[in-house]
Order: sequence, then structure tokens, then C-alpha cells
Amino acid sequence: MNNNTAHNIDKSPYKIVKKQFFLISENDFILQTGERLEDITIAYETFGTLNAKKNNAILILHALTGDSHAAGVYDKKDEKPGWWDIMIGPGKAIDTDIYFVICSNILGGCMGSTGPSSIIPGEKNSYNMNFPMVTIPDMVRVQKRLIDHLKIKKLLAVTGGSLGGMQALEWSVRYPDMVEAAIPIATTMKHSALSIAFNEVARQAITSDPNWNNGNYSKEKKPDIGLSVARMIGHITYLSDKSMRMKFGRKLQDKNDLPFTFDTKFQVESYLKYQGEKFVTRFDANSFLYITKAADYFDLEEQHGKGSPVDAFLNAKARFLVISYTSDWLYPTHESKAIVKALKKNRLDVSFCEIKSEWGHDAFLLPDKRLNKMIKGFLASVYEKIQGATNNEI
Amino acid sequence: MNNNTAHNIDKSPYKIVKKQFFLISENDFILQTGERLEDITIAYETFGTLNAKKNNAILILHALTGDSHAAGVYDKKDEKPGWWDIMIGPGKAIDTDIYFVICSNILGGCMGSTGPSSIIPGEKNSYNMNFPMVTIPDMVRVQKRLIDHLKIKKLLAVTGGSLGGMQALEWSVRYPDMVEAAIPIATTMKHSALSIAFNEVARQAITSDPNWNNGNYSKEKKPDIGLSVARMIGHITYLSDKSMRMKFGRKLQDKNDLPFTFDTKFQVESYLKYQGEKFVTRFDANSFLYITKAADYFDLEEQHGKGSPVDAFLNAKARFLVISYTSDWLYPTHESKAIVKALKKNRLDVSFCEIKSEWGHDAFLLPDKRLNKMIKGFLASVYEKIQGATNNEI
Repeated sequence: MNNNTAHNIDKSPYKIVKKQFFLISENDFILQTGERLEDITIAYETFGTLNAKKNNAILILHALTGDSHAAGVYDKKDEKPGWWDIMIGPGKAIDTDIYFVICSNILGGCMGSTGPSSIIPGEKNSYNMNFPMVTIPDMVRVQKRLIDHLKIKKLLAVTGGSLGGMQALEWSVRYPDMVEAAIPIATTMKHSALSIAFNEVARQAITSDPNWNNGNYSKEKKPDIGLSVARMIGHITYLSDKSMRMKFGRKLQDKNDLPFTFDTKFQVESYLKYQGEKFVTRFDANSFLYITKAADYFDLEEQHGKGSPVDAFLNAKARFLVISYTSDWLYPTHESKAIVKALKKNRLDVSFCEIKSEWGHDAFLLPDKRLNKMIKGFLASVYEKIQGATNNEI
Repeated sequence: MNNNTAHNIDKSPYKIVKKQFFLISENDFILQTGERLEDITIAYETFGTLNAKKNNAILILHALTGDSHAAGVYDKKDEKPGWWDIMIGPGKAIDTDIYFVICSNILGGCMGSTGPSSIIPGEKNSYNMNFPMVTIPDMVRVQKRLIDHLKIKKLLAVTGGSLGGMQALEWSVRYPDMVEAAIPIATTMKHSALSIAFNEVARQAITSDPNWNNGNYSKEKKPDIGLSVARMIGHITYLSDKSMRMKFGRKLQDKNDLPFTFDTKFQVESYLKYQGEKFVTRFDANSFLYITKAADYFDLEEQHGKGSPVDAFLNAKARFLVISYTSDWLYPTHESKAIVKALKKNRLDVSFCEIKSEWGHDAFLLPDKRLNKMIKGFLASVYEKIQGATNNEI
């Protein structure tokens, strides 16, 4: 869904950014399951400058298959910037001339942070399926260590879409004193049966690939076909009926007429296959299993409110901007409205916007002036308020 | 989705029915691709009695994985009747005390009609992927031979849901003089990009199962895992977000708490896995490939109207009752409305009803008083009219 095209290298519009690593050196990090995980590494990137008061930091939380590379390029030669470069940069909605932006790869991931493909400390092999189950609260607890390490006492905002939105919600209730504002986008308080169903079928596709080999695959013989099918399933759920009609309709890939053979491909088929094949070059199959399972287990209501959505936010203190998209059928608007309702019952300061869009769940990754304006305005208002408060305190 | 439970064998409420076979003995059946298919066998079943005037026949058209066994049982010991027994029988909506009901297994299927698993005439092996591509028009053309064979000049009605609805539409425009009325249910005039996408991913799941072996699998080593994943994908699309919330929510299969392991299954996961595993015992993987491809190729607009939905129905003469379901996102209501619009522009007699239901695409297979009443009333009206016409002619 990325529309960026090749650009003039000398005039690259993108900022150079460097991937950094933070090691949780203590060996007593206890996961939600009670299991211990040693030597956790977290890959992260920062954009902009932390101010003297350390009160301009925004934590970006990525979705299922994202990474720490939220904006900029690693090298002037890179043709494609980070996954949310449309939002993060000088003068952009999340303005790096004003804010200090942090994005880290989630625990369980495969883009630099500790996950199933990491080498077990003191051993030669990677964890594979011996990696302990990690949850979204675990991901957030690890991010908190990173924020502590950066000596930031309170984040100006936490934001992300999809699985990133779940993390933003978790942040707001787990560390209420560390979150000034939260912007959960296209997300849910608890993973629905439909979303679990799609994830489970995707996992089945991976684990039934003989190359998966109970998770013990080699680099030369990976479960690429299963992972590719899993990605194709995911991709369908990120789009919408209408967006697929508009984008592909019944157009054929290479032909004008329909010769009725198995080789004849509709454009939508070729597109999905391409997305699947591209994905396997950058993503680890076991990570996919762990992260989708973490999403399925996500239930803020149950874990923080003992089944009550209102109680789940009892401790929350942040200001909220909740955003959903009309054509998102994976995390439909009514799920965002349930969040808003629970927040309001707690008398929290909450704004809600359902953006009209035909682009389905993936809409939050596409350029959208309304999203830009809304987030820019919201952040300015939050920042202005705390600046005022701090000045008054002085 | 079948709610029937075990019943007292002596008091079986189901009629006994027998599967019959019709052989198209001529060896010159030319398919839409131009290919020749020899010795086509069509499995069919009939319910009720053909009257002397042969004007009370209703042709039932089954969906993707259905068969000729639309109602009744083969044996008094059978616990489960045919797939639309709720609709077909004495006193039911499609009343076998009044109508003569016919249902045949589609060409390309695996339930008695010629398909990829059939033995090639004069050889020892089955066709497998050497079976020629068949289209929905081909399926309908073969059904027409069966109706000719039964010496029925005009069908009182053709009806079916999903792929069955596509066949009903094809009947109405291909053989306008043979169709008094058509009842397409939960269907579409042309397969959308979304539906093609789901079918393609399901096909990928099958063809990437190493047991598939380019279609040349043995009975002992079938691509069961791939076919099971394909069925699971299908099943999700037959349900709705809300029906899955109501039916499963986040309930766990065997446990009350959430121990966060890969073994812990949500009910929705177990349900889908069960559906997948059950399916592979009755369905042929190659048939699944051919039939989904036929569905993807279905485009009444293009094939009969050169791209114009109105022109597609230029030759149609039938009365129509078009039915859709509010929560069907596979063939959403707007696709039924497009059919209705095109029919009306041709000044055809058309009734349309969108049934409010939470059960998604599969709703047409579930007991529903509104559907019963509507179809019963519509058929009575059509039958009364032709009886009157015939009497007047006398």
C-alpha cells in the first residue's frame, strides 16, 4: 500500500535515521506468563530532538508486521522511507521540528528486537518455538524500560494503528502517569472472533507448510509458501470490498479477454501473490505466529477491568483522540465507539473521529489530509497545555 | 451450520430419496472453452411427483460444495437430511405435495457428476488437472440436457443461493423460454475482486500442500491440510462479524482462564478447524479448484451483455424474486440491487427482499420463516398464474 516511487538521490526528501539497540541487561524480566526472558534487545529509532524538559516525546507503536523504521531512510540511496514517513517529519503531522519521536520494534518481532529468531543467550541456536509466549502488555512493559532508559518521565503522546493502537491503549492504563495523551487508531479493546478466525487460518497456513518443521527451519528452507498465504489472507482483511472494486475490479493481469485457464490471473490475484512473495523476504514465520497470538489474546476489558470496559480505564488519565475508518471491517467503528464510551464513563477527555474512507483497515497508512490535520491539531493542543502548566509551575 | 440432531429412526421425519444418474451419451459436448468432454454423467435426485402437464418442476441449484442431495435421506438410519431439507418437502416452502423438485450435482463436482476426480473414458486414470475448465454456463447447459431428458419443456422455477443463484441467473438468460420464474438468493451478477481474492488464497492453500502434487494425489495421500485451510477461509466468509461475536465471542474451547500458550484454543478456532477437517472427508481438492475458478469467471454482464448489466437480461422472460441478506459481506445487498435494477430496466416482473439477518452469507441455509413464507407465496402465485393460463388455453 506504499505509493512512494523512486526519487532523485541527491535531493532525497527523507531524513537519515539510524537503528539503535537497547539492551535490558538485568536478567530478571518476567513475562506475563511468569516465564523469565534474558538479555532482551530492543531495536529503536528516534526522530527529532528531545528538549531540555524532556516533555516533547511521542512514542509510535507499530502494527503486526511493522518495525522501528517509522520514518526517514537509513541511507540517501534508499528509495523507500519508513512506514509512517507521511506522518512523521519536519512540518508533518507529527512534527519533528517540535517533537522527539521514538519507535521501537516490538518484543517477539524480527526486525532487531528479541524474538523467536533470536539466538538463545549462551547457546548457538535461536529460540524458534521455544520462545516464550509474549503478550501486548509484555511488549508495552519492555517499551517502558526503553523510555526509562531515555530518561523520559512522561510521554507527550503514544499512538499507533491496529496492533499499535492496542499498545497505545495498554500504555494508557498500565502507565497512566507516563502518558499525557493517547491516539489509538483503527483498533479495538479486545480482539474479536472474526479477527481471531483470520489469524488462526493464517497460522494454519504457516504450520502446515512442511518447511515450517515445528518452527525449526533453516534460512535456506523456510516456510515461505505458508507465510505467503498467511500474508495474502491478512492483506484481504486490510482492504475493503469497495477499495478492491476500485483498485482491481475484474481486470486481468496480462490479457484483455478471458481464455478460462488456471494460468489466467485477475489483477487482484497477482497483487496478492506479489504481496505474499515480497513479505517472506523480510519477515520471520515464527514471529508471525507469536505476534498474531498476542493480538488474539489482547483483551483490555478482561485484563484490566475484569470484564468491564469501563473499569478497564479506571486508572487512565490521558487525553484521548480515538480514530476509526468507515470501511474498516477488521476493527470496525463500533469497536472504537466502545472504547470512546468506556472512556467517557470515566469522565476522561476524549475526542472521536470516524474518517470516511473506502480503503479499509489499511487507510491509516495512506496519505490523508484529515488524519494529518486532526493529529497535528490534537498534539499542538496537548503540548500547549503542558507547556502552560509547566510555565505556571515555574 | 446444520442444526439437525439425532432423531428416532422409526419415526424419521425425512423422505427417502435415491441418487440417480443421467448420462449424456453423445460424445460431442463442447464446453465454453471449445474443448470436448466425453461421457458426461450427471448425478441428480428428485422429490415429489411430476404432474401430467409437466409444469410443476422446480430446479434447485446448489452452492460451491453442495450436491444433488437437497432434501430427504438415503436411508431411514441417516441422521442428517439433504442440505435444504428445511425448504423442500411436503407442506414446506418448496412443497413436494405440489411441485416436482430436481437437484443435480454440478459439472466439475465430486458428488456423482463428472469432474476432475472422474475416470477418463477408456482410460484407467482420473482427469485430475487435465479436466477441462468448466464454467457456470457449462454447468447450466448440462442441467438443460437433464431437463430435456426428463421431458420437461418449461421449469416452473429455478432457484439457489450463492453459486446456485449464479446458475439461476444464467438459466434465466440462456434459456428464457424454459424458465417461468427465477429466485436467485444471496448472489451476484459478477464475481467481485474481494470474492476472487478469497478464492485465490484458498486455491493457494491447496496447491501449496505438497500432497497436492500438481493434482495427482492418491486416495491415501490427499492434500487434506491445504483443503482444510481453504475450507476454513471459506467458512469465515460465510459468517458475519456479529454472528461470530454471538456464536463464539472470545470463549475458550476447554478452559475458563487464558494460560497464553499456542495450545489454548478459542472456540472459533476449534470450530473452524473442525469444519476444515470434516470437509476433507467429503470433498475433492481438484473439484474445489475448478469450481472456485468457475465462480471467479462468472460475469453475466460481460458474457451476455457485453459489459452492460441491462443488456445482459435483454432476453430474459422470467418472473424474478431476488433475495439478499443484510449481513452477507461476500455477496452484499448492493450486488442483488444491481440485478434488480437491470431486471427492472428490462421491464421484467421482479420482487426484491433484503432479509435482516445476523448470520452472514450462510443465512440462506438456516431456518427462516420469512424466507419460507416469501418463497412459498411467490411459487404459489407463479403456479396459479400458469395453471390459469393453461386452463384458459384449454
